[in-house]
Amino acid sequence: MNHHEQPWVSRRGFLRAVGVSGGAGAMLATMGALGLAPTAAAAAPPFRAPTRSDFSLTGRSGARVVILGGGVAGLAVAYELGKAGYDCTVLEARARAGGRNLTIRGGSVETDLDGHTQRARFSDGVYLNAGPGRIAQWMVTMDYCRELGVPVEVFTNANADALIYNESAGMSAPVRYRTAKADVYGYVSELLAKATDQGALDGRLTATDKERLLSFLQSFGAIGGRTAGWAYAGTTRRGFVSYPGAGNDAGEPLGAPPALSDVFASNVGRYFSFELGYDQAMLMFQPVGGMDQIPMALARAVGHHRIRLGAEVTDVTDRGREVEVTYRQGGRERLVRADYCVATLPPHLMARVPHNLGGDVTAALRGFGISAAGKIGLEYRSRWWETDQRIYGGITETDLDLAHVWYPSYGYHGRRGLIVGYYNTGANARAYSALTPAQRQERAVTQGVKIHGPKYRSELVTSYSQAWDRTRYLEGAWTSPPWGSAGYDLLLRPAGRVYFAGDWLSHEVAWQHGAFVSARTVVTALHERVMAG
Amino acid sequence: MNHHEQPWVSRRGFLRAVGVSGGAGAMLATMGALGLAPTAAAAAPPFRAPTRSDFSLTGRSGARVVILGGGVAGLAVAYELGKAGYDCTVLEARARAGGRNLTIRGGSVETDLDGHTQRARFSDGVYLNAGPGRIAQWMVTMDYCRELGVPVEVFTNANADALIYNESAGMSAPVRYRTAKADVYGYVSELLAKATDQGALDGRLTATDKERLLSFLQSFGAIGGRTAGWAYAGTTRRGFVSYPGAGNDAGEPLGAPPALSDVFASNVGRYFSFELGYDQAMLMFQPVGGMDQIPMALARAVGHHRIRLGAEVTDVTDRGREVEVTYRQGGRERLVRADYCVATLPPHLMARVPHNLGGDVTAALRGFGISAAGKIGLEYRSRWWETDQRIYGGITETDLDLAHVWYPSYGYHGRRGLIVGYYNTGANARAYSALTPAQRQERAVTQGVKIHGPKYRSELVTSYSQAWDRTRYLEGAWTSPPWGSAGYDLLLRPAGRVYFAGDWLSHEVAWQHGAFVSARTVVTALHERVMAG
Ligand SMILES: Cc1cc2nc3c(=O)[nH]c(=O)nc-3n(C[C@H](O)[C@H](O)[C@H](O)COP(=O)(O)OP(=O)(O)OC[C@H]3O[C@@H](n4cnc5c(N)ncnc54)[C@H](O)[C@@H]3O)c2cc1C
Ligand SMILES: Cc1cc2nc3c(=O)[nH]c(=O)nc-3n(C[C@H](O)[C@H](O)[C@H](O)COP(=O)(O)OP(=O)(O)OC[C@H]3O[C@@H](n4cnc5c(N)ncnc54)[C@H](O)[C@@H]3O)c2cc1C
Repeated sequence: MNHHEQPWVSRRGFLRAVGVSGGAGAMLATMGALGLAPTAAAAAPPFRAPTRSDFSLTGRSGARVVILGGGVAGLAVAYELGKAGYDCTVLEARARAGGRNLTIRGGSVETDLDGHTQRARFSDGVYLNAGPGRIAQWMVTMDYCRELGVPVEVFTNANADALIYNESAGMSAPVRYRTAKADVYGYVSELLAKATDQGALDGRLTATDKERLLSFLQSFGAIGGRTAGWAYAGTTRRGFVSYPGAGNDAGEPLGAPPALSDVFASNVGRYFSFELGYDQAMLMFQPVGGMDQIPMALARAVGHHRIRLGAEVTDVTDRGREVEVTYRQGGRERLVRADYCVATLPPHLMARVPHNLGGDVTAALRGFGISAAGKIGLEYRSRWWETDQRIYGGITETDLDLAHVWYPSYGYHGRRGLIVGYYNTGANARAYSALTPAQRQERAVTQGVKIHGPKYRSELVTSYSQAWDRTRYLEGAWTSPPWGSAGYDLLLRPAGRVYFAGDWLSHEVAWQHGAFVSARTVVTALHERVMAG
Repeated sequence: MNHHEQPWVSRRGFLRAVGVSGGAGAMLATMGALGLAPTAAAAAPPFRAPTRSDFSLTGRSGARVVILGGGVAGLAVAYELGKAGYDCTVLEARARAGGRNLTIRGGSVETDLDGHTQRARFSDGVYLNAGPGRIAQWMVTMDYCRELGVPVEVFTNANADALIYNESAGMSAPVRYRTAKADVYGYVSELLAKATDQGALDGRLTATDKERLLSFLQSFGAIGGRTAGWAYAGTTRRGFVSYPGAGNDAGEPLGAPPALSDVFASNVGRYFSFELGYDQAMLMFQPVGGMDQIPMALARAVGHHRIRLGAEVTDVTDRGREVEVTYRQGGRERLVRADYCVATLPPHLMARVPHNLGGDVTAALRGFGISAAGKIGLEYRSRWWETDQRIYGGITETDLDLAHVWYPSYGYHGRRGLIVGYYNTGANARAYSALTPAQRQERAVTQGVKIHGPKYRSELVTSYSQAWDRTRYLEGAWTSPPWGSAGYDLLLRPAGRVYFAGDWLSHEVAWQHGAFVSARTVVTALHERVMAG
């Protein structure tokens, strides 16, 4: 390979860079764009939905399919099979379709496993995405939004004006991301420039490398040059006391940074890698009007008559030539018969449903770790974070038990707004789950005041909290699958006429992407079986 | 100061962090929130608009004010003075108010100084912000959007999935931001960890600093630990050939990074500091539906009857007790008399208008450097950058003469869309200005194909290009003010009854913020004079 022509990334490297799973034809289209023919190294074949012509051309016909669970996986199975005319029935225990894809609005009401009933009193247009909140550009979830006509807008995963507050590091007040980044990058650049210039890295760097590295560090860290000892002494990137104005008002920059030791002691840098993650890097997106626009659009496309709500599955029996599913709805026991079944219940709940699929299936379903997560939505009567603190969306990170605080990525400049006062997991989530909704609010506000001042309490109107481990028919936020185990692999194959699907059977657990690609895989397998039958 | 209590940022430091210029009361509100009283060190007093009660309480009345130029500065002057009942007349030479705040839509037509006439043939809903495109959270421009009811949405200044393409560094294909960042941060972290661990920085770092720094670098660079020699060997942050999917599909990560020398030779890191800038850091915003929603809303608030369009100012004479302004409209010479005049024309154009304000004023007006900038809007029949390349908005950076390529931050998943095919300045802008619109399109597309492949040409529907140095009544993109000079200071004071305003009289040139704060300063000065009179 000629270095001058291909110093950095090969043509194939670029193809890899643009390749995405599930984006039908993306890879091929780009390869075409670059004038390269497809090769065996290309991505897995894109999903191809079953179509009516698959049957009309072969004389076969669609089968009856009963789908357990009306989360996005179950709905997507019904939607994709429906394209070819399969006769699908979705059984969903909760009052609404969507499963963990749950948006709370004024009037939403639910009683949790501890008997706490909450009725959300949010104002019109104010909502809480209690489960999923964001979508990465490469995710299949974006394709469903496009296909279903669900408009998307930016979800702010990172904002230079959001805050960092590490109480355990002794911070007495929060610092803005922009300030923290300027200081950490500044000192990192200073240190590396010094070491480089002093020859400490001569074993690893050529003279040309050194020159290029030093020039990068000067720009990246806004540090002084060689004569200034490469020192970091602050930069306008930190922000301003008052921003530049009219006439001779050059603004008042924040001034000199804290000492190097203090910057690293504050541990603000621990949050910087989040926005580099392949699944979290900005831009991220959300459906306009709430995440549940996705299941709502899916349910419309599937047909509401095919979705039975308040229908709790109580038994699954494979009769050899068909499947019988018993469910309870409106206090009565009912039965559905179908040619195939797709079970999308969370594995730990599916494990409790009586069935005749074998003890190994039950054991496998029990093999998933279950995580807790919680969120609280705090509705405020003013958008003080925008007007007073100039924070328009994004996430404040903290080592308090709140973990993450989200400012709304919608309704900018509106009258009211909703802050996600905590989005925590594990022990923090369980600690809040153990409280009553009123206690959760009190604790979240007390913590949040430390970061935001008294308006965090005084402007509050109402709140709603979701404890996923205490939520009926879900009992957890997501799973840790035992990838590579025999049990996991068992569930990837149908148990007779029963298939399993859900984000727990994917490598993108805790993302709708995982639920969708799992659903698609089952659809393909089931359709191939029917076509071969 | 107790180190344990105040290790990182003092309470005052936090106040500084949240302080913003112009956001009325923000600083004070936050100080209140933290229980601190205001001090002399606080930001400049917030702008207070004149009100009718200023007059009714004192028996004075508003004056007649003629405003030269209907850009956002001129409109803001009329808007703010209008709140107190001043009798304002705006004279604007162009066919529309807004000045450089110009949004091109289907039907927009304009003839430039070289006689090239372009009529935009963009589809419904497709637009080009030919001038301003973005607003930072702290800018007064956001306050005007709120006050005027102009809805805002995120403008994407940085996107991990956008591309970098440095032809001069020998790159034969673009690389995504996420990949470039992973590699640069990875190698920077490796190098600094090595140097630190080997004791090369012991003069600067305590043992505790070193430990904290090493732990930061491991997370920031996704590098190996001590036993692995702190080596950077790639990370999923680089992206995937195919992203993780269902079942056992863990995805295919992009693989090993290029060698350290190649990464720095590619010079991709030169773009990373952009998003750290105090004025460019994400989040940035734009008005929904086009930047000209701001002047449109201002014009509505001012009253269209007060704005004379196609009115070219040809003379300004201060008569001592009043000002006479001559202008040409519809081929006829007309005259306005007013108590005061506010001139917001670009300085190099104001310098050419005959006046009796003195030679020093003319000389001062001539003292501003003028910059060129250009943009082309390319409308495509499909949004291939979203479907094929999974780029939902943002900026691709290149060392081609295109400089910046912008993907649209609106209309996601729509049928059509508009790419800003170049946004360049200086010599690059002048090179494109010298071409005909058809030649500009050809050149922009030929360059863009190198980055995006043949769809960049084959999907193109139509284009419109703006050469600001060749645009009538503007003749430039923005100025370089001679801050600190006597001439600059002269223009900050009224020349008799004539005031000057515009972004060129601020420290935020090339930002509407500068135009707005300059306008506010003149409004305050003029109103104080009238109140004192
Ligand atoms: C706090 C949180 C944050 C998240 N963040 C994101 C994010 O930002 N982006 C993203 O894309 N994803 C996110 N996710 C993950 C996303 O919610 C899931 O991946 C996806 O919703 C899973 O869909 P599913 O259909 O596989 O499962 P589920 O939604 O769990 O569906 C299972 C369904 O089965 C039903 N059910 C259970 N028992 C029975 C029964 N006996 N009879 C009938 N029905 C029954 C349930 O009511 C439920 O509707 C988040 C999840 C949580 C909890
Ligand atoms: C390419 C480009 C990109 C930019 N990007 C941004 C951005 O992202 N964000 C941002 O906030 N700002 C941006 N700006 C800057 C922003 O456009 C300006 O700061 C702002 O619009 C200036 O307003 P103004 O009223 O001071 O001047 P102008 O808009 O220049 O107004 C002057 C007015 O005077 C009129 N005029 C001239 N001669 C005469 C005459 N003889 N008689 C009558 N009227 C006359 C002109 O027609 C014009 O309307 C950008 C500008 C350009 C060109």
